[in-house]
Amino acid sequence: MSRSAHRGRASSLDAVAGNGLINRRALLGQGIALAGAAGISGATGAAAEPLDDEPWSLAFGETTPALQTPSRFEKDVVRALSNPKSEFRTSHARTPHQLLNGAITPNALHFTINHCGIPDIDPAQHKLVIHGLVRRPLEFTLDTLSRYPLVTRTHFLECAGNSGAMFSNEPVQAPAGLLHGLASCAEWTGVPLAVLLDEAGIDPAAKWLVAEGGDAQHLQRSVPVKKAYDDAMIALYQNGERLMPGNGYPMRLVLPGYQGNMNVKFLRRIKVIDQPAYTYFESTNYSQILPGGRTWRFNFVMQVKSFITAPSFGQQLKEPGFHAISGIAYSGTGRIAKVMVSADGGKSWGEAALQGPVSPQAFTRFVMPWRWDGQPAVLMSRAWDESGAAQPLRAEFVAQRGQTRAPVKSPLAFPNQHYNSITAWGVDAKGEIKHVYG
Amino acid sequence: MSRSAHRGRASSLDAVAGNGLINRRALLGQGIALAGAAGISGATGAAAEPLDDEPWSLAFGETTPALQTPSRFEKDVVRALSNPKSEFRTSHARTPHQLLNGAITPNALHFTINHCGIPDIDPAQHKLVIHGLVRRPLEFTLDTLSRYPLVTRTHFLECAGNSGAMFSNEPVQAPAGLLHGLASCAEWTGVPLAVLLDEAGIDPAAKWLVAEGGDAQHLQRSVPVKKAYDDAMIALYQNGERLMPGNGYPMRLVLPGYQGNMNVKFLRRIKVIDQPAYTYFESTNYSQILPGGRTWRFNFVMQVKSFITAPSFGQQLKEPGFHAISGIAYSGTGRIAKVMVSADGGKSWGEAALQGPVSPQAFTRFVMPWRWDGQPAVLMSRAWDESGAAQPLRAEFVAQRGQTRAPVKSPLAFPNQHYNSITAWGVDAKGEIKHVYG
Repeated sequence: MSRSAHRGRASSLDAVAGNGLINRRALLGQGIALAGAAGISGATGAAAEPLDDEPWSLAFGETTPALQTPSRFEKDVVRALSNPKSEFRTSHARTPHQLLNGAITPNALHFTINHCGIPDIDPAQHKLVIHGLVRRPLEFTLDTLSRYPLVTRTHFLECAGNSGAMFSNEPVQAPAGLLHGLASCAEWTGVPLAVLLDEAGIDPAAKWLVAEGGDAQHLQRSVPVKKAYDDAMIALYQNGERLMPGNGYPMRLVLPGYQGNMNVKFLRRIKVIDQPAYTYFESTNYSQILPGGRTWRFNFVMQVKSFITAPSFGQQLKEPGFHAISGIAYSGTGRIAKVMVSADGGKSWGEAALQGPVSPQAFTRFVMPWRWDGQPAVLMSRAWDESGAAQPLRAEFVAQRGQTRAPVKSPLAFPNQHYNSITAWGVDAKGEIKHVYG
Repeated sequence: MSRSAHRGRASSLDAVAGNGLINRRALLGQGIALAGAAGISGATGAAAEPLDDEPWSLAFGETTPALQTPSRFEKDVVRALSNPKSEFRTSHARTPHQLLNGAITPNALHFTINHCGIPDIDPAQHKLVIHGLVRRPLEFTLDTLSRYPLVTRTHFLECAGNSGAMFSNEPVQAPAGLLHGLASCAEWTGVPLAVLLDEAGIDPAAKWLVAEGGDAQHLQRSVPVKKAYDDAMIALYQNGERLMPGNGYPMRLVLPGYQGNMNVKFLRRIKVIDQPAYTYFESTNYSQILPGGRTWRFNFVMQVKSFITAPSFGQQLKEPGFHAISGIAYSGTGRIAKVMVSADGGKSWGEAALQGPVSPQAFTRFVMPWRWDGQPAVLMSRAWDESGAAQPLRAEFVAQRGQTRAPVKSPLAFPNQHYNSITAWGVDAKGEIKHVYG
């Protein structure tokens, strides 16, 4: 932008909703007074006056490593582990959204769920078989798959059970990453599944696939053939490098927008069939029970959703004044169209700025300028996707889906899945932030 | 896509240029015979027959770590270090492009150049000062910067000296990452510099800034004020997490498309002035000497460029038949418009498929289907950007810029900068790949 155009825009710090929300197009920069006055002259000479030096300004620094890692001052930026001693049960590792920004999740911090530990797979020995209703069954190695033209796409993955704590009768007091950390976003590069199915010669009677993982769980999930031809991929790379071991190394299925568990990791088999396989996991864990005992048997698409990552639980506003509100929005249906933010518990809403490019089935970062007056406030976000679907308000969601952590009849059923309603953060007069049901 | 539409497209395996290049829209999948026949029945029942198990299919796997790292089988995917013992000189760490794919560079593998080691900066003590031709000098902490609405953008960074080996009289035999590894691409999140300049109240007479780093080098570079208002950012996050220590933690200047060195790391000062500062580094290292002794004093924009990462030096084609050609294209001017690929040393060219979203001043992955006939071939890529600028052919480039590794008069001058011509890979009849000048 030109300097004058910028100044024109910066002059409008219009309120767009109650309790201090500011027009997202305001570029600020006009005395919002976050910075302190600098104790240095405004002299106009080109040679810059020396600043006070810090220790790191005076000494030769540290060695450059072959693989660089974050600063020691970022040691708390880690995934939250549900099973750190690797007991003989499922391990969850949750992305610490409250400490991150942007849209990409770095590979070190991508969420993982592994039901039987993380397999140590030799990529030279691993094979992918495609068989069933095909003219010729085929077997692929990592080498042969790498010879196809690969496609690169950015997509989120989200566990169907992400945000399960939001079904609690009382708001669980935990940071955004503990509540919603079973969702992450990466750039995936791999072979379109359609290419491999055509190479095998798929039978016109084929309607479903069964995808199977090569770790000890041998997870099997049924996938409609239509999804395979729409946009499914056998992913070989994650954010530019080979997949992380916990994310499916050396290859996984990526089904953009479908619940995480269907994106089968350590993929070793795709069997083409004419009906769903009704496998153990899809018939138990991944059939959501509704109020009244009905179930959603196949509920693949992760619905439109958003949550605020800053300010959020565990953080504190140190003083009244300007604070940006920032969060993540995504939809399994396609692109995010709009995110609205409220600072008054949903009484009024202003539209947030989306950080582009807005890609389908990908995290979209939203940002909203806000001036906090030092009084209690309740912050919320609500997203819409390009299909017109809106993130439901909490009352709407609870009416349809129920609100329970109570045991259900089947010990295998998990009713607390596909939460996509609002997350509300209550700010008190001290600037402390709690999780509230708005 | 629908299955039938896909099949229609897949039927055209038309040659688009000499020596086996295939139309980029061909989706293949029709008997290109990369896969082996699978030794498993095509039985149509939904229950999948057991496959032979590998060791990792039979045992409970490994522990989930708080920060996940690549598989032990990927131990060679590291940056190449020029100064592994951290002697008292510059350290380069180069991105191993020949082992990566997609467009994002993972943070562990982003290139770094540090002239005085990597500073161990306490982010709570670090400050950014803006002064000079402003109404009120300001001092920012990481906390205060984090309260502004942040923007998120994906951009490459490239050292002006990247690809310096391409000025050699004979082609240097080295992998793509050693030749071109001083360029990487990340998602950056930070504060638009324009906002901070407006907050300080920039004087209408201001034409330049001097940006200064806080490590022991105290690098100073002059930047036009216009660039600051166009798209400059003070970056705080890299691919979603805080900056890597070697990439400028806790804050750096990002000037999209400008030579890497100007994107000052560990940024501690911006002084607003009315003329360039002609600092030490910009007057010596970063003034390119041309044939005849002329120099380009300010040559900021990294010109349109591309190179093939696979197949490339150090890899071998194991057999004739289908192989995808894949590489990276980028331009400091804006978006990539087109990449052409040749398999016959530049006699004929076919258009490659670009992987979207194609963002300005960002890596764009290109892919080209190719059927190798087992005879010698020379692979090249050539990119165009949205301004119409074309990557120069080598003869054109050498005529303008010279071809020399010989010493020049000033020991401080570096003539071998801003290489953006073609990289050619020669494939011999055994499938071995050498670096050639096409």
